[in-house]
Amino acid sequence: MLSKNQIKTITALQQKKYRQAHGLFFAEGIKVIGELLQSNFELEHLYETEPLFAQIPQSKKTIVNQTELQKISALTTANNCLAVFKIEQPTPFSEHGLIVALDDIRDPGNLGTIMRLCDWFGVEQLVCSNETADVFNPKVVQATMGSLSRVKVHYLDLENFLTQAKLPVFGTFMDGKNIYTEQLSSEGIVVFGNEANGISASIEKIIKKRIAIPRFGKLQQTESLNVAAATAIVLSEFRRS
Amino acid sequence: MLSKNQIKTITALQQKKYRQAHGLFFAEGIKVIGELLQSNFELEHLYETEPLFAQIPQSKKTIVNQTELQKISALTTANNCLAVFKIEQPTPFSEHGLIVALDDIRDPGNLGTIMRLCDWFGVEQLVCSNETADVFNPKVVQATMGSLSRVKVHYLDLENFLTQAKLPVFGTFMDGKNIYTEQLSSEGIVVFGNEANGISASIEKIIKKRIAIPRFGKLQQTESLNVAAATAIVLSEFRRS
Repeated sequence: MLSKNQIKTITALQQKKYRQAHGLFFAEGIKVIGELLQSNFELEHLYETEPLFAQIPQSKKTIVNQTELQKISALTTANNCLAVFKIEQPTPFSEHGLIVALDDIRDPGNLGTIMRLCDWFGVEQLVCSNETADVFNPKVVQATMGSLSRVKVHYLDLENFLTQAKLPVFGTFMDGKNIYTEQLSSEGIVVFGNEANGISASIEKIIKKRIAIPRFGKLQQTESLNVAAATAIVLSEFRRS
Repeated sequence: MLSKNQIKTITALQQKKYRQAHGLFFAEGIKVIGELLQSNFELEHLYETEPLFAQIPQSKKTIVNQTELQKISALTTANNCLAVFKIEQPTPFSEHGLIVALDDIRDPGNLGTIMRLCDWFGVEQLVCSNETADVFNPKVVQATMGSLSRVKVHYLDLENFLTQAKLPVFGTFMDGKNIYTEQLSSEGIVVFGNEANGISASIEKIIKKRIAIPRFGKLQQTESLNVAAATAIVLSEFRRS
């Protein structure tokens, strides 16, 4: 049985201010929870409709029925488990390797897809402007498919960070150099911009390496690619070369 | 003023069976409507909160207020215009060039993103299994950002189509050949599978060219990329080579 208070506390974690106040977030479904359990995230409590994770001590889990699970779920149709985890203290940022920087990505689905891409292409650090969607938002947590456990995310003042960066800073622009022929370094920071407005003017000034994904459409009317699609192509090119 | 009947007819177009029965679909916002007006799609009627498209005759447009527009909109917050178009009769399929084939893509956002990618990379024909999401679904129409006017979509029995295809048939699989080093042809059919299940067994049997996107993550745990992200990388590689 879940108390009214427990339901209230968990559903409040759908909001960023409560996640920050309590230092907690939640994930749903065996796959995502399983991957988070194998990582550094500390489990606060697991709610499940049947015994699913034998390795978790009884004191850390509660059997609930489907109606109760639906009450605490952020999904339209609840899965069979929901786990509350402690938000990990970010490890100190270290400027090395390939780093992805996001300039105000607002869509949780895009952020989740970009995290999976970072994970796939071995990008261990993701830097986000303070206005970027929160990675602990339930929609992002679900979209990451567990990549949250492997990619370190840092929220910071992006303009300040890029100004002081020592690694080369790349950004995609229509007038940039062809990524297929341009020499791409194995270390660097690659900036991707907001869904509607692209890279902001203050950030654009700091970007020294302007790159572009060539367009092949006959009519040349397509204005832009979805930001997650652009991230996919650019990271693929950085790793290929 | 909109009559109750008009409101009912337009909102019904959110459902596939009514779109098919009436041969109509709708789009919202200046950008998407503007691109569709420049294409072969025939306008049935435009609803706008102020005069936005001077080229459209008075008989084809109605000024509505924001409350009325919200009633016919599929968006949480309606834009300033909504246009009903006739569903174009598909042009005969012609097996040439690079063709993308979708094996049961269910998410409207993924389908929209894939249409934009086809448009960007000059893929003029998209072939969809009959179980793939409907391109005239309002969510897909919005996600295509106008690419719907440039990419021709054909729904058909995918297994039958691929069995009879003369062009080489490609598909991405974990055990496929590295797309960075594999010789990719300028003509061919590239199959992408369902979000949860990938390419179905009956389709896999027909695919002769198994390709793979190399994974660079240290831990090698990422199971898969989002299908639209995979499409982005694969189309980029086909066009680069």
